[in-house]
Amino acid sequence: MKCLRLESPGKMTLQKVSLSKPRERETVLQITHCAVCRTDAKMWTQGHRDLILPRVPGHEICGMLGTQKHVVWPGRSCGRCVQCLRGAENLCPAMRILGFHMDGGFAEAVIVPEESLVPVPAELPGHIACLAEPLACALNALDQAGEIPGKTLLIYGAGPVGLFMAMAALESGARPAVVEIDPEKVHRTSRFLRRTGIEICTDPDRGDFDLAVNAAPSSEAFKDALPRLKAGGRFCFFSGLTTREGIQADLFNEIHYRQLEVVGAYGCTREQMNRAVQILARRPDDVETLIDRLISLHEVPSILPLVLSGKALRFVVSVEGSTSR
Amino acid sequence: MKCLRLESPGKMTLQKVSLSKPRERETVLQITHCAVCRTDAKMWTQGHRDLILPRVPGHEICGMLGTQKHVVWPGRSCGRCVQCLRGAENLCPAMRILGFHMDGGFAEAVIVPEESLVPVPAELPGHIACLAEPLACALNALDQAGEIPGKTLLIYGAGPVGLFMAMAALESGARPAVVEIDPEKVHRTSRFLRRTGIEICTDPDRGDFDLAVNAAPSSEAFKDALPRLKAGGRFCFFSGLTTREGIQADLFNEIHYRQLEVVGAYGCTREQMNRAVQILARRPDDVETLIDRLISLHEVPSILPLVLSGKALRFVVSVEGSTSR
Repeated sequence: MKCLRLESPGKMTLQKVSLSKPRERETVLQITHCAVCRTDAKMWTQGHRDLILPRVPGHEICGMLGTQKHVVWPGRSCGRCVQCLRGAENLCPAMRILGFHMDGGFAEAVIVPEESLVPVPAELPGHIACLAEPLACALNALDQAGEIPGKTLLIYGAGPVGLFMAMAALESGARPAVVEIDPEKVHRTSRFLRRTGIEICTDPDRGDFDLAVNAAPSSEAFKDALPRLKAGGRFCFFSGLTTREGIQADLFNEIHYRQLEVVGAYGCTREQMNRAVQILARRPDDVETLIDRLISLHEVPSILPLVLSGKALRFVVSVEGSTSR
Repeated sequence: MKCLRLESPGKMTLQKVSLSKPRERETVLQITHCAVCRTDAKMWTQGHRDLILPRVPGHEICGMLGTQKHVVWPGRSCGRCVQCLRGAENLCPAMRILGFHMDGGFAEAVIVPEESLVPVPAELPGHIACLAEPLACALNALDQAGEIPGKTLLIYGAGPVGLFMAMAALESGARPAVVEIDPEKVHRTSRFLRRTGIEICTDPDRGDFDLAVNAAPSSEAFKDALPRLKAGGRFCFFSGLTTREGIQADLFNEIHYRQLEVVGAYGCTREQMNRAVQILARRPDDVETLIDRLISLHEVPSILPLVLSGKALRFVVSVEGSTSR
């Protein structure tokens, strides 16, 4: 089969390889679409904590098993530890991830555990369905944010994932507003914003939020958000920080004195993937506006710098090589 | 009446003043005991965010109204805001505090709102009862830590308040262990530790805790605790940080990747004061071992440096001037 393989940082090439044999309770999924995540671009330049080379990247996968369309929960968890047993398989200490520890979705086919397949309704197009994974990660952040109906929620970053989160928050009855310092980003997503009615918060003094989430890797979101939360409010670290700077201890006294809560969110669970598919099926046309364009496998290396720059919407690989949807 | 008044940093003198008239729904409590908190010592040297001078300090108060013994919830909240209405009156933005915004307990009498009085059983001695306030603050930290029965809890700091917290955790069915780097502190509290069976954790590699709380102002507790928590575990900022150092952003990625929760705890509520009184009434002899000695009002300035050093157990002012219990 054809696949894109990352051999070493900066070197990703189209290759023909033969797929190994699936083991017990594994199956071969014929990939139709795989979206390109910023993490794919990051591992291409600088590697990643969980990356073992050489590797076929790609973890936002949609494909066919016979006539049934599926998306893939990209983890492989032990199923027996305390985290797996409480339904937090994203925190399994033995977790291995497609596109990181195992070959992923920039290929014509992928080996996946049967239990990682999440069925997709036939009428939901594959290029939309493959975005279930980032949407599920956004749902996980909202789940960590606690009870959200009726709550005000400040989301930092109007990239596609921040906007997915705002859309999901809206569906849950929260009142989201998005902070975005880059006017071009707001401009690029204006169709989505218009369609969904999601608001960009332009008043830096607006406070009294119940919740805040970072969907951008700068530590500025954390520093800006804490004073804007109500006493007892909650901040969710959805993005990891790429900076190595120190954060002033004063900020922790804000947590102490006003009983704020700071929680983390990483990855997603199968249950969240299922919910994500349902949301995508209700809003395919909104989500469509956050896709830049469909590309073929061989185009991936050339668009990675643009993905890394954060100056584009989502690219989705159409694995058949066609750009038809 | 006699009182100790802080005129300016470092200058606290015994004075005779006349008490002003209580307003509507206020009353005059005849003080029998007031414990000395480290915050009293801190404000004596360096002031405090909430301190308005000149001021009679002291906020761990027990006294008599007629023949009924009471301790005092030291706050004065608006009663109408969203925080007061949800039972988090410690977070009321209009909060004023005895000994900070209003004259407190280093005096023969104090004016308090009637609704701030928490009745104490006659058989609980006043010098124990006055410790209801710090114990209630410890209960607040445990409340912010969430469901604790059966959970493992790491408490940083074997000062009296850290040990109060461990005792309350034990009563709630948690399994507390205390980290203390100062062997003298462990020695000083050995009677308490022996009586209660609370364990000092001496293995720096022991991990997998459900919860951790700092009862010491160094940022080391935070840095040490996060990697020792289970994925999904929770850290409570019970102590504010006095340092101005920066905390490395890496630590936030620990929160992100392992979905940790960091929550704050500040002050206490009336309901927590009530529960604290009940715990003290069940364990007066354990608590007695954490009291250094009873002192009279005029001795307070001379023991403040020792309080500030953290090298003593609790001092309790016996306002009648006697050292009888």
